[in-house]
Amino acid sequence: MITELKLLDLNAGKFIDEKVSEITDAVGDGIAINALSGGVDSSVVTMLGHRALGKKLRTVFIQNGLMREGEPDMVAGMFRKLGVEIEIIDARSEFLDALKGITDPEMKREAITQTFYKKVFGRIVRESRANYLLQGTILTDVDETVAGIKRQHNVFAQLGIDPQETFGYQIIEPLIQLRKDSVRAVGKALGLPEEIFARIPFPGPALASRIIGEVTEEKLTVVRKATSVVEKLLCESDAFQYMAILHDDRVTGMREGKRDFGRQIEVRCWNSIDARTATPTKLPFEMLEKLAGDIINEVPGVVSVTYNITSKPPSTIEAV
Amino acid sequence: MITELKLLDLNAGKFIDEKVSEITDAVGDGIAINALSGGVDSSVVTMLGHRALGKKLRTVFIQNGLMREGEPDMVAGMFRKLGVEIEIIDARSEFLDALKGITDPEMKREAITQTFYKKVFGRIVRESRANYLLQGTILTDVDETVAGIKRQHNVFAQLGIDPQETFGYQIIEPLIQLRKDSVRAVGKALGLPEEIFARIPFPGPALASRIIGEVTEEKLTVVRKATSVVEKLLCESDAFQYMAILHDDRVTGMREGKRDFGRQIEVRCWNSIDARTATPTKLPFEMLEKLAGDIINEVPGVVSVTYNITSKPPSTIEAV
Repeated sequence: MITELKLLDLNAGKFIDEKVSEITDAVGDGIAINALSGGVDSSVVTMLGHRALGKKLRTVFIQNGLMREGEPDMVAGMFRKLGVEIEIIDARSEFLDALKGITDPEMKREAITQTFYKKVFGRIVRESRANYLLQGTILTDVDETVAGIKRQHNVFAQLGIDPQETFGYQIIEPLIQLRKDSVRAVGKALGLPEEIFARIPFPGPALASRIIGEVTEEKLTVVRKATSVVEKLLCESDAFQYMAILHDDRVTGMREGKRDFGRQIEVRCWNSIDARTATPTKLPFEMLEKLAGDIINEVPGVVSVTYNITSKPPSTIEAV
Repeated sequence: MITELKLLDLNAGKFIDEKVSEITDAVGDGIAINALSGGVDSSVVTMLGHRALGKKLRTVFIQNGLMREGEPDMVAGMFRKLGVEIEIIDARSEFLDALKGITDPEMKREAITQTFYKKVFGRIVRESRANYLLQGTILTDVDETVAGIKRQHNVFAQLGIDPQETFGYQIIEPLIQLRKDSVRAVGKALGLPEEIFARIPFPGPALASRIIGEVTEEKLTVVRKATSVVEKLLCESDAFQYMAILHDDRVTGMREGKRDFGRQIEVRCWNSIDARTATPTKLPFEMLEKLAGDIINEVPGVVSVTYNITSKPPSTIEAV
């Protein structure tokens, strides 16, 4: 049982000092590695690791082809400004090959997990001779994995997998007692720029979580464009998280006066403190119309846009 | 080219007198038949035909299994109060059999059309020895068929089909110059109760238009329940049309703390004058939440509800 460290009880400065010295002690003369996704959790872990280990930490950003527009360069650029060098690894074809023909959500997550850990990141770790892996697991991931809601890809221990035996390295999870709100507070205290510590959450399986049915390059292009539109319009909304989901279902629409059996994008925008529960943001109707109009105009093939109006539970934050 | 008779230029009393005498003259000593769906168009045609022909008109309501909750009895009951006897024909298994395995929207519509005309209604017409068929085709149906947007099932002439040769009867279309607003005005002038003449439009393929993918009895039950919830909550909204659409895509949700790979219902609520163009109704967010909550609670298996925020065009009113 992990004890929650609530935002109210959190002294971010003290927390950082403790975690930095824990990481320093744990790694000792070893080498650590971590994968940065650009989300707030892995960004905070990267900074904690960098403070503790400096050049003894190698941080890689795996370009899995499931990322948002311009993401790898944007993230690496921001960290470079903070004095942290990020290595970008191009693994797009490996992920796309692994996802081919898979429609079941659990199998998609599993394919991404296996490709990430066993294939791409596993190979990098083995070649790096690192013996410690820093991971951005937070308490909500643990809860949801235990409850069987989603199989989070980064919670080996909870799944009864021995990472030492399976992957050949030990895992350090400095954020395991925190929920999202506390992680943001720590990020702020670490001096991360607002673009990072206040970044909306983004799931491990990235855009694959936002494609219903098989993940293909063509569908990734569509959902990536729709995501750009949604993030651009909602970045000032104060919402907890917002996203575009590409449906597999086709719906009837019209283009130039002719029938067009087209695609549908579902927009979700959540109010939430910690992702455990969430409600749809009461966006002004003008914003909903702007979202629909811009997506229709900017994303080829889309004839229909919906807004999700369900709470979590029974919905989940992501669709897949 | 059909000349439009606009609401502004419509004298409903005069229109009714003209159409009644046209129908009387056309049918002469013959027998006419018509199919009543319960929508405003076929209801108005039934009343015009009844006035013109009395017992020489036979009106059937074909229960195709794709109807809304309690629909056949409700419609027949309302007409009985107006002195018009409606015959209910149970053809549920014929329609379900015809729809089996079909996922393409055009093929679904075609299966329903063929089952309706060639099989069920064709058989009834032949057995009845009627030689005239009254049809509720309106100008919007003609436009959309010509434009190739949707293949309306009731516009044979526009599709180059000779109904005399193909089905053995002649078609009388008294509403062909009108759009929906004028049809309502005529319905009102005919003394139809508000429940009928002000009824929201309902498509020919009925709930099959609101199921993405294959139409099955189980999916009909789900979409029928969701439709009841939506119609109950939105009947006072002044919207032009509102509906529940059952998606084929499954989305991740939670029930009793466990993952539940469930169904999604899409709600559409349209503002429109004549269905040619339409915009989503700006429902208060409290109503959107109520819709989502009631659907989740009352319709088994649903974990997610969306609201369509696209205009027509490029959307269409119905999803299929």
